[in-house]
Amino acid sequence: MAEKGVTPRSEDYSRWYTDVVQKTELADYSPVRGCMVIRPYGYALWENIQAALDRRFKETGHVNAYFPLLIPMSFLQKEGEHVQGFSPELAVVTIGGGETLEEPLVVRPTSETIIGHMYSQWVRSYRDLPILINQWANVVRWELRTRLFLRTTEFLWQEGHTAHATEAEAQEETQRMLGVYADFAINEAAIPVIQGKKSDREKFAGAVASYTIEAMMGNGWALQSGTSHFLGQNFAKAFDIKFLDQSNETRFAWTTSWGLSTRMVGAIIMAHGDDHGLMLPPRLAPTQVVIVPIWKTDAERSSVLAFAQQALQTLKGAGVRVKLDDRAEVSAGFKFNDWEMRGVPLRMEIGPRDVEKHAVVLARRDMPGKEGKTFGVPAAGLATAVPEMLTTIQAAMLRQATEFRDANTRTVSSYDEFKQVLESKGGFVRVHWAGTGEDEDRIKEETKATVRCFPVDKPEGEGVCFYTGRRTDRVAIFARAY
Amino acid sequence: MAEKGVTPRSEDYSRWYTDVVQKTELADYSPVRGCMVIRPYGYALWENIQAALDRRFKETGHVNAYFPLLIPMSFLQKEGEHVQGFSPELAVVTIGGGETLEEPLVVRPTSETIIGHMYSQWVRSYRDLPILINQWANVVRWELRTRLFLRTTEFLWQEGHTAHATEAEAQEETQRMLGVYADFAINEAAIPVIQGKKSDREKFAGAVASYTIEAMMGNGWALQSGTSHFLGQNFAKAFDIKFLDQSNETRFAWTTSWGLSTRMVGAIIMAHGDDHGLMLPPRLAPTQVVIVPIWKTDAERSSVLAFAQQALQTLKGAGVRVKLDDRAEVSAGFKFNDWEMRGVPLRMEIGPRDVEKHAVVLARRDMPGKEGKTFGVPAAGLATAVPEMLTTIQAAMLRQATEFRDANTRTVSSYDEFKQVLESKGGFVRVHWAGTGEDEDRIKEETKATVRCFPVDKPEGEGVCFYTGRRTDRVAIFARAY
Repeated sequence: MAEKGVTPRSEDYSRWYTDVVQKTELADYSPVRGCMVIRPYGYALWENIQAALDRRFKETGHVNAYFPLLIPMSFLQKEGEHVQGFSPELAVVTIGGGETLEEPLVVRPTSETIIGHMYSQWVRSYRDLPILINQWANVVRWELRTRLFLRTTEFLWQEGHTAHATEAEAQEETQRMLGVYADFAINEAAIPVIQGKKSDREKFAGAVASYTIEAMMGNGWALQSGTSHFLGQNFAKAFDIKFLDQSNETRFAWTTSWGLSTRMVGAIIMAHGDDHGLMLPPRLAPTQVVIVPIWKTDAERSSVLAFAQQALQTLKGAGVRVKLDDRAEVSAGFKFNDWEMRGVPLRMEIGPRDVEKHAVVLARRDMPGKEGKTFGVPAAGLATAVPEMLTTIQAAMLRQATEFRDANTRTVSSYDEFKQVLESKGGFVRVHWAGTGEDEDRIKEETKATVRCFPVDKPEGEGVCFYTGRRTDRVAIFARAY
Repeated sequence: MAEKGVTPRSEDYSRWYTDVVQKTELADYSPVRGCMVIRPYGYALWENIQAALDRRFKETGHVNAYFPLLIPMSFLQKEGEHVQGFSPELAVVTIGGGETLEEPLVVRPTSETIIGHMYSQWVRSYRDLPILINQWANVVRWELRTRLFLRTTEFLWQEGHTAHATEAEAQEETQRMLGVYADFAINEAAIPVIQGKKSDREKFAGAVASYTIEAMMGNGWALQSGTSHFLGQNFAKAFDIKFLDQSNETRFAWTTSWGLSTRMVGAIIMAHGDDHGLMLPPRLAPTQVVIVPIWKTDAERSSVLAFAQQALQTLKGAGVRVKLDDRAEVSAGFKFNDWEMRGVPLRMEIGPRDVEKHAVVLARRDMPGKEGKTFGVPAAGLATAVPEMLTTIQAAMLRQATEFRDANTRTVSSYDEFKQVLESKGGFVRVHWAGTGEDEDRIKEETKATVRCFPVDKPEGEGVCFYTGRRTDRVAIFARAY
């Protein structure tokens, strides 16, 4: 039970975030530096994320499997760029069963290497391709600066790893999964992400090209929320994933990988939360509706609770994730605040007069005050009225987040203007970009903003780069990012 | 695609097991000693196990959460018996981010310690109890002799950890979860497990009492398939899980833990498999029905496939997990053998004459040859006939396993007879038992048999111990075990 609310967002965004995570009991710090405990409320949210993604993975022909946690150190070293990227972040097991290991084992930071090795055993002929496997797993990356959900030493994620006979197929798969992530983010999490390609500076270590969905948080910062990598033949060559094609020639396979993690919980918190706390999209909320009964006398109490029980059963029968808060030791007002902080999308209030009228009051989390309240909703129609209102809330949350993103996306025509916009307003800066990697580095150093992506959709056509003055058809989104 | 069948069970049980696991593509060896790769078919089976258990956990009021993989070494040392039991099996991370860690971190072998620590933070008052949390996770135990699914260095499992205000509640929880495991094993896996208490020699390191479900494998050996532990106040005291009770007095909580792992896959393989390979219980089988179309001419092919497609859609609509094997490059006979080896419970054959008659042939995996075939099953009735037959198969498999277990459970009246029965027949030996732990050790050394459990149900009442000659009401089941 929370004693008091969260620090207002406007006062201290960073503290607001930590407050929301801890006071709503999504997660807690652990005694191991940088690791977190995902508490039941946070894990229930993650389970809903998992279900929504897993369904999409299976619909696109993927199956799940499980590969070992521990990877021989020598495997990491087989792909040059990969080992460079991940070496500084490794946790290493050097002792097993009381003895020093001959070869140290790495706790997986990602599984391209061990999975590449297994694929090389399984693939012989073009008939064995494609392999379309996903894994739900924990991974460990030794991060220096951690933040609950956003960047933790251990995190949960899914990692898809596919192998294909042709480059075109692998490219197509990379784009398909980027699309699956975007579809999930937009239609389940109500986050209007932008799909785009990562710059070389920001791509996955070992990939030919990395693609991302970028989300805008409530403070205008960007959050990379899922990535899909075209790995070319880099890992196939490093791990010898070869096959006989239809003309009986030996070829290397083409591979992809794609991942989305518990970081998405952080995205949901920051894309939708407000001064009162969490605001969860109905499709992912562990509790979609909370029923708060209101009474004064004992007689009122029993009739209100009986009525509330009926509503509870009706909604359960309609497939709604609903909770009845019948606690006697706290006031209705306390419950209102508590569930508001926990981001439950819809509150149902039932008092003695509602019972008389065979009706209830519905209050939307996404619309404060009277505006979000509907009075006299007939109890007889709840099985359809409530799901409809949840759909309405889901759509409204996406609309609101889209409007916020668009209002905070700006274009600039000079580097001075760029710096000024970032400093005074933040948000996304969407510009034509013909700079180099070194230019990116310099901008990052001077403004803390990075190229978040080269968006796939760029209706603006050709234009002038704000930094180099060169004409280009390349568009980039710059922002400060988590 | 499998080139040939498995080694017959009667010829070499151990090779049969490994063949089944590998040839049906349930799992594969990994380059890391003792770790396995769970392949998609095996993982799909595990997902069905997970779903059946998770539903039961939630129905009994539990929620899921996630705790860190890495545990400070000092935590392990806080409960004396616990550290003794697990020390020899630990994998230890000594390097993180390129630097030697001040305190080594253990890769969790089980999570009582880290969870105990967190509970001590979360529990203040009796109102915070009970805590009923389950975790789906991977764990690592450095095993010397490993065997796919049965004993691997890393395995997947669920571990429930609960904390209660009273001893009685914790005892009740321990029994409730033992019952949940038994219900799952019997009604989902069709394995007639025996519920019982572990002897002190075999109990969990740190528990006051351990309970088990013991299953009989096809060679008469026992397999411990799930355990539920009453931990008393041992971990509460070691980790300081204290609360103020209703009279405002400080008390230590009472805790339990319970776990079931991917070992259950091994149980299913060995409880039901036969010379032809795997035999999966319909409720857990990734594919419940495989449709094998049979044709010679192109004209036959198109009408048979059209008919098969209809059957496929009908069954999918009825919620059956069904596959259509329309491969052209292999014969129908090859497919029969292949799916039989993979243990699919029901095969549907469709040939040109079946199409004419608007009917199909159904062949049961659990009944070999003609006996298990039903001809002329009307296509119009498949949506009910197939689910019914799956229910019949599920029940028949449980019956068969129960008959096998009972036929291979014997009683003896002397130690000589005990040794002779174990040597010549194997199976379970069910006896009155008044021996000591040292007696158990001696019997184990001389016969390789151990006390599997003291069964909860013991209609036999009092009797004479076969080993000590003393009268006792304690009944024990001895067996060789994995």
